[in-house]
Amino acid sequence: MSAYSELKARFHKRSAIEGALATLQWDRAAMMPTGGADARAEQVAVLETLAHGILAAPELPGLIAAAEAEALGADDRANLEEMRHAWVHAAAVPEDLVAALAKAGAACEMAWRAARPKADFAAVLPHLEKLLALVREEAAVKAEALGVSPYDALLDSYEPGGKSAEIDAIFADLAAFLPGFLDDVLARQAARPAPLPLPGRFPAEVQRGMVRRVMAAMGFEFDHGRLDESAHPFCGGIPDDVRLTTRYDESDAFTGVFGVIHETGHALYERGLPLGWRGQPAGNARGMSLHESQSLTMEMQAGRSRAFLTWLAPVLAEAFGGGGEAWTVENFVALAQKVERGFIRVEADEVTYPAHVILRYRLERAMIAGDLALRDLPAAWNDGMRDLLGVVPPDDRWGCLQDIHWYDGAWGYFPTYTLGAMTAAQLFAAARAAVPEIEDALGRGDFRPLLGWMRANVHEKASLLPAPEILRRATGKPLDAAAFKAHLAARYLG
Amino acid sequence: MSAYSELKARFHKRSAIEGALATLQWDRAAMMPTGGADARAEQVAVLETLAHGILAAPELPGLIAAAEAEALGADDRANLEEMRHAWVHAAAVPEDLVAALAKAGAACEMAWRAARPKADFAAVLPHLEKLLALVREEAAVKAEALGVSPYDALLDSYEPGGKSAEIDAIFADLAAFLPGFLDDVLARQAARPAPLPLPGRFPAEVQRGMVRRVMAAMGFEFDHGRLDESAHPFCGGIPDDVRLTTRYDESDAFTGVFGVIHETGHALYERGLPLGWRGQPAGNARGMSLHESQSLTMEMQAGRSRAFLTWLAPVLAEAFGGGGEAWTVENFVALAQKVERGFIRVEADEVTYPAHVILRYRLERAMIAGDLALRDLPAAWNDGMRDLLGVVPPDDRWGCLQDIHWYDGAWGYFPTYTLGAMTAAQLFAAARAAVPEIEDALGRGDFRPLLGWMRANVHEKASLLPAPEILRRATGKPLDAAAFKAHLAARYLG
Repeated sequence: MSAYSELKARFHKRSAIEGALATLQWDRAAMMPTGGADARAEQVAVLETLAHGILAAPELPGLIAAAEAEALGADDRANLEEMRHAWVHAAAVPEDLVAALAKAGAACEMAWRAARPKADFAAVLPHLEKLLALVREEAAVKAEALGVSPYDALLDSYEPGGKSAEIDAIFADLAAFLPGFLDDVLARQAARPAPLPLPGRFPAEVQRGMVRRVMAAMGFEFDHGRLDESAHPFCGGIPDDVRLTTRYDESDAFTGVFGVIHETGHALYERGLPLGWRGQPAGNARGMSLHESQSLTMEMQAGRSRAFLTWLAPVLAEAFGGGGEAWTVENFVALAQKVERGFIRVEADEVTYPAHVILRYRLERAMIAGDLALRDLPAAWNDGMRDLLGVVPPDDRWGCLQDIHWYDGAWGYFPTYTLGAMTAAQLFAAARAAVPEIEDALGRGDFRPLLGWMRANVHEKASLLPAPEILRRATGKPLDAAAFKAHLAARYLG
Repeated sequence: MSAYSELKARFHKRSAIEGALATLQWDRAAMMPTGGADARAEQVAVLETLAHGILAAPELPGLIAAAEAEALGADDRANLEEMRHAWVHAAAVPEDLVAALAKAGAACEMAWRAARPKADFAAVLPHLEKLLALVREEAAVKAEALGVSPYDALLDSYEPGGKSAEIDAIFADLAAFLPGFLDDVLARQAARPAPLPLPGRFPAEVQRGMVRRVMAAMGFEFDHGRLDESAHPFCGGIPDDVRLTTRYDESDAFTGVFGVIHETGHALYERGLPLGWRGQPAGNARGMSLHESQSLTMEMQAGRSRAFLTWLAPVLAEAFGGGGEAWTVENFVALAQKVERGFIRVEADEVTYPAHVILRYRLERAMIAGDLALRDLPAAWNDGMRDLLGVVPPDDRWGCLQDIHWYDGAWGYFPTYTLGAMTAAQLFAAARAAVPEIEDALGRGDFRPLLGWMRANVHEKASLLPAPEILRRATGKPLDAAAFKAHLAARYLG
């Protein structure tokens, strides 16, 4: 057997273990009774160790070097490069640091869960200091292995090949544009009547049927996935069996349906990955910003467009027996495109969301670089909110304690949200230019033209090309803020 | 680390992998969309290989030998004995035979699924011949390793230490008793008015609530398990997170509730295994006949007793809005204790069920011994049915094609059903003698006195003692048919 064939077999096995883990993690969130938690944690730890062991096998670097000397086609070479990338990340971090990070992350997350409702940053600070010290150690060893800066080494886990120098330029462009734009949008919005919230209550049972109708319209295949319920909605599972979750707020079906549309966007990406590369690293989704671009294309670009809302308004009215002013397309557009300065990222609209992300990106870069001490984080956060959004959180629960990421050890993740929003705008503009019927079809609740273009230009590329190259081939240029700004201008000031 | 500690760590890891497998298998039956089947089969195969690899590690026999020389208490010694037992089974069968069995079993099962509805035994015969040849090979190598007969070597997988010589004696006693007894019961029954089936339809949603009420009464802890739905009801999961399934027939809630009571009996046994032995072989349930004794204690001994039916009848009447003659306790007793000659094992009542099992046990012994050729199986089956039950199946769908076991490679399993029924009768009689309030409590839907006795006398023993020793300590004597016959006589001719 060639070295490359041997590697493929090993990575296939690793993928099967990770697929099993995906089911166990979905089950934990959506199905497992509380009494199963300890046993499940053990199962997950054992399987994670077995999956890691495949990357950590002493003969792996030799196999990779031998395979690199074999005659391989471009796709196999890309697959081999993904194998090396996974191995470099795994091999860079000593086992005792992996264990220390897992332990400190679990302790910090638990402290954060207690501290957040009490807005008690001081209580979590010592845990976060310990965790950040270990994350900086991880960043340093990965920086050495990858030949990049420590921050970029962390970013690379979520956005392979991502560079903060490029992000800086794009975010600077956005940060210069947004404050003035936001003032204009709010002024325009203030001159109009406020949107009417949908009246009544929305039984979970009716919502369950309604969101499935929307998912089916989007092209979700229920013989290759499920929708269930969990406290924190997510998209998990594997490409042939995607497991989505949502939760139902019986007082607000409107927010709920867009949450499902968002997760379905993630699911359609996973499902559209090429069949021939199942179980191989090159067959995986290509990083978090492209993943987020797929959810945001569906939620923001398509889902909140006037065209789609023209289809959605009567569907919801029929499901809930709604009638009158609140259920008109006009009111749906006003609700779906409402803009508001707020403290909380996950509740933000698409105009203010980038400000939340730019703030976190700047702060985490400074903390990883050692330029911002953790004890100064709350003040720096509040200053940043004032500068970027013009609001100051009343306490740290509404400020630097709101997101789990840092407290869970996920540093370098935040920029991918806004990179994803900009990628979505750029992809959607290219798709509409290439396939003019996309908009009319959305008006009939028909996502097939849009999904077809995404399948061919994004999903089927998997990790066979770098993300910037996928975007360049799909849109004709590298990522910048132009399409996103144009989208915002057309939707909110057009 | 001592050799025994090292072994405990390895078996703990194996148990975690098997716990993960239990979740994946439950998910496949109860949750997975059809499109996930291929990927799931790969995940299961990879995890099974990893679990097997722990037993197949070349250093394992040395560790076991070293641990046997260490100073261990009685429980640890029992645990070590279980480790050796698992290792002997795994080591006896060469890897290529394991693979051939898996392949032939899958092919034969698929052929059986096609052949059964057409009553076409000839179509499955070549597959079954191939599979049986491999099973006989497995029986031979395990017989050599265990020092027992080939049939007993197969039986040993399901009933550790089980001996066909003992089963022969007990089954001969039963086979002599049952035909005449059955005639008497049927004559007595014929002299009474036939039970009235519960009228109306029974919406699945109402059944879901009703069976959960019954499970709660039985002591099922919903923070340590779930009830879901699957085509073939089973009890899976792990002791801290038991996963039951059932299916709802909207035309028959009565059969359904006893199915759930049966599976809950299995679940309570798993849940009652001692906490201190989680993850170790000595902490596992002690073989299939004791497992079946727990489901049959709940379904047959307690569940179909007049005392419990006195509580159950009004519970069902309330759930379904029933009233009138069919919903009386008297009619519930007549329904729950109805006896009938039939062709199908899984539909049989407790009086005729042993005949189905004795037939299969005699036939599979003869086939494993080479005394009965597979082509002669249909005729031998029909002869046996005539002798034991007085009925002859109209075709093989109602005869030797009805059960999956042989076609799936499970030979040596059948006797445990009736051993379980006799064990249930013996345990229940001992429990009632020791705790007189059991019967009154059942009349109030209170299983606590019964469950408390089972916990102390069966569940908490796990695999720390051999099954016959658990039974002897609990009931004062080894297994025989006396309690079962006395139970039948009291219930059906009393």
